[in-house]
Amino acid sequence: MIGPEIETLINLLSRMPGLGPRSARRAVLHLVRKRESLLLPLADALQTARDSIVTCTTCGAIDTIDPCTICADPRRDDSVICVVEDVGDLWALERAKATKGRYHVLGGVLSALDGVGPEDLSLAGLKTRCDTGLVQEVILATNATVEGQSTAHYIMDMLKGSDVKVSRLAHGVPVGGELDYLDDGTLAEAMKSRTEF
Amino acid sequence: MIGPEIETLINLLSRMPGLGPRSARRAVLHLVRKRESLLLPLADALQTARDSIVTCTTCGAIDTIDPCTICADPRRDDSVICVVEDVGDLWALERAKATKGRYHVLGGVLSALDGVGPEDLSLAGLKTRCDTGLVQEVILATNATVEGQSTAHYIMDMLKGSDVKVSRLAHGVPVGGELDYLDDGTLAEAMKSRTEF
Ligand SMILES: [Zn+2]
Ligand SMILES: [Zn+2]
Repeated sequence: MIGPEIETLINLLSRMPGLGPRSARRAVLHLVRKRESLLLPLADALQTARDSIVTCTTCGAIDTIDPCTICADPRRDDSVICVVEDVGDLWALERAKATKGRYHVLGGVLSALDGVGPEDLSLAGLKTRCDTGLVQEVILATNATVEGQSTAHYIMDMLKGSDVKVSRLAHGVPVGGELDYLDDGTLAEAMKSRTEF
Repeated sequence: MIGPEIETLINLLSRMPGLGPRSARRAVLHLVRKRESLLLPLADALQTARDSIVTCTTCGAIDTIDPCTICADPRRDDSVICVVEDVGDLWALERAKATKGRYHVLGGVLSALDGVGPEDLSLAGLKTRCDTGLVQEVILATNATVEGQSTAHYIMDMLKGSDVKVSRLAHGVPVGGELDYLDDGTLAEAMKSRTEF
């Protein structure tokens, strides 16, 4: 006995991470109550997101311009590429102001279990970027999980023979932990004392 | 270094109940990954919600039509009005198919602490509906909290002297509990064995 439009909205919201059917219903009621301050701007923001969010063809980040804000920024250091698993990790490192270099988003990690092989990640793009002669250091900032570390090893092997120095984040990152859960200070510290790979 | 449009979307999502800044960031990444199946339809659904969700001037429910689907349904029983605190409670009772009557949404409960008095709730509208002569029973389905029960008492006093029978949900509702958290069976049971007030 709820209108189909509201039902649709609840169903879609319940598919967001962290929201189930019950919290989606609460979210809809909250949106309706906060019509001016939340529903209207959120509807606009999603419209904008729909129309303008793109994946950067250089690094794999998401932004409203391609190349993204970071790739287009002349003040960033072209000689350093920080390799991350996904965009959330890039955002975490940016919040921590951990590097002035560029990024490369792999789009996942190697995983035999999940059937993710090298061709499923943006490894070819990384190799191409490293072959331009501009890059002097690749910082491997994959998660400290088994898959993250074996992906790091795979990349180290891939870059062997090139002139690029390969480093990884220092062991400030808790073993088994994920970057996106860490506080800024720990991330910045781990970046500062990164070790040669 | 995230584009301002994405930043805005994260900020708005983090103000939804159940989502904080971190889960809002995850939600945005999820939306971008599920562009076709989630971002596009959700943007449309919110646009529709913005343009069409209204509060029913009869009962206080939300819908895309006014009077709402329930108030406009000729198969519902005009002689029964079920009084609830908010729209979430109405939805819970509807899911449980607990009544074939109409509803009246109070928009809250009396609370000295929160400064909510009788004039802040839709009590005048309820009185008007009860005075039409159509209504034979008012079921008080406020929450089993102190405020919910004192609001129920207030309404019972307000309707004293009219010919309307006032009942309330049976004590299947756990004391101190809120309707929206209950399973359908408990709600239906509580409705069936409602007691005269
Ligand atoms: Zn980029
Ligand atoms: Zn209505």
